[in-house]
Amino acid sequence: MADEDIEFDLGDRAAYRYWNTHIIRFADLDPANHVNNVAYAQYFEAGRVEFWIDAERHVSAPDSVGVIARLTIDYRSQMSFPGEVEVGTRLVSMGRSSTHLAQGLFRDGECVATSVGVMVLVDKVSGCSTAIPDDLRAAVVALSDG
Amino acid sequence: MADEDIEFDLGDRAAYRYWNTHIIRFADLDPANHVNNVAYAQYFEAGRVEFWIDAERHVSAPDSVGVIARLTIDYRSQMSFPGEVEVGTRLVSMGRSSTHLAQGLFRDGECVATSVGVMVLVDKVSGCSTAIPDDLRAAVVALSDG
Amino acid sequence: MADEDIEFDLGDRAAYRYWNTHIIRFADLDPANHVNNVAYAQYFEAGRVEFWIDAERHVSAPDSVGVIARLTIDYRSQMSFPGEVEVGTRLVSMGRSSTHLAQGLFRDGECVATSVGVMVLVDKVSGCSTAIPDDLRAAVVALSDG
Amino acid sequence: MADEDIEFDLGDRAAYRYWNTHIIRFADLDPANHVNNVAYAQYFEAGRVEFWIDAERHVSAPDSVGVIARLTIDYRSQMSFPGEVEVGTRLVSMGRSSTHLAQGLFRDGECVATSVGVMVLVDKVSGCSTAIPDDLRAAVVALSDG
Repeated sequence: MADEDIEFDLGDRAAYRYWNTHIIRFADLDPANHVNNVAYAQYFEAGRVEFWIDAERHVSAPDSVGVIARLTIDYRSQMSFPGEVEVGTRLVSMGRSSTHLAQGLFRDGECVATSVGVMVLVDKVSGCSTAIPDDLRAAVVALSDG
Repeated sequence: MADEDIEFDLGDRAAYRYWNTHIIRFADLDPANHVNNVAYAQYFEAGRVEFWIDAERHVSAPDSVGVIARLTIDYRSQMSFPGEVEVGTRLVSMGRSSTHLAQGLFRDGECVATSVGVMVLVDKVSGCSTAIPDDLRAAVVALSDG
Repeated sequence: MADEDIEFDLGDRAAYRYWNTHIIRFADLDPANHVNNVAYAQYFEAGRVEFWIDAERHVSAPDSVGVIARLTIDYRSQMSFPGEVEVGTRLVSMGRSSTHLAQGLFRDGECVATSVGVMVLVDKVSGCSTAIPDDLRAAVVALSDG
Repeated sequence: MADEDIEFDLGDRAAYRYWNTHIIRFADLDPANHVNNVAYAQYFEAGRVEFWIDAERHVSAPDSVGVIARLTIDYRSQMSFPGEVEVGTRLVSMGRSSTHLAQGLFRDGECVATSVGVMVLVDKVSGCSTAIPDDLRAAVVALSDG
């Protein structure tokens, strides 16, 4: 699924119900005195993982794990230290074993980056992709809808 | 430009002439004992930046800087510690101010991830995008072609 | 100055007036599913740098920069994700050009690590250590005393 | 054990037999365009962990893990990107459950930092410190002596 097929604006705060906060570290800065683009990836990752942990809380006996398969980040604005950012996470779509999550990164209300991550559910024993169980599916939708 | 329009196989070692090496750190590992996906982004970033530094070496009086605008990473395989990886970097296309770079990440000859990064040349003073000068353009092509 | 010469308990929350908060990231975790010891160093560093930035705010025309010369961290407890930590920072002593800062890292009120950092003030032009000016000296004391 | 009691010069390349190499990443840089002090901690950590993994390779059925209890780093020189560094690791002393490791970080043969790390062997089940078994003790000495 390409970004252009997503039917909401990833840069609009109002698009998200699920939120995390992160605090910029001095170690995030690059020689231009801006937050390095890799740190943005850390903020988005932490948001995805917390979202997933929260969803799995409602699921009995998880024997699978969500693994990132594809990550796209669109950078909009540079950021300085110190300060904090908010990450909004929202479900785009779910296939048999894969989940598309859209994310927006905001500072002081302004969108500084957006991201789409494709996660695949992998069976911990076989290492193969596995179907998303119905209860996890429902929990992901519920979290995304707030 | 979508990945599907790139006319070479990003996962093929033979596609690349420009190479960097990186060494996996214990701090790169995640709770699954695999290299965290954010560390892959560090390897690709270091490859892009070294490529750009090498290209600018042939350019008189650079008053601009390459800034990442969009990053996509496709994850193929998980990696363990310790070990080293190679990053191949190759030019896909150049517009007026933007450059598409394709990258492949390899461990023991196997492709573990690919990436496409879009860099925009930004004037250091104005902060606006600026045309890629001819000598930088030629240097990028020369580096990519090896 | 050895730790044993510090006349307050670095692990006591009540010892600190200057505070910063940091949020644990998934990327901070190690294969044991605990926050990697290097992430602790990032929390302490961000605390020191914010302290120093705040102190320099009261100083006219800073032409010098604080550089870390020695860092010691004592690890007390392991931490999991997600969650947040607080860093307390307090002045231990100042010499001609060096400053000893003590720090405590706390989670849910419990001390999980302490640190002593020695920073040297370095002239930006010469690269040599330089005397801490009186106004900076006073600002550091004021911040530490809250 | 204080540094001053170590009977060899931590900044002398000739003091070390066990070596690892690391490659500086762009993400390691700070706003001063130097390698951030936290990245030094990553180089030292990777050296300690590889040392420990190598030592445990000679040990049957390890049911314990080495955990860092205290870390001290002395910073000598600043470093730029790109480039590589070498980490030398050497045993200082072993107690019942703790091991003192000295390390030197070198770039182009010059010592840029030294470190002393205290690791405690912890039983994986009880979480308590445990005596270093004789075979691990012998392996650590053998690795350190080269």
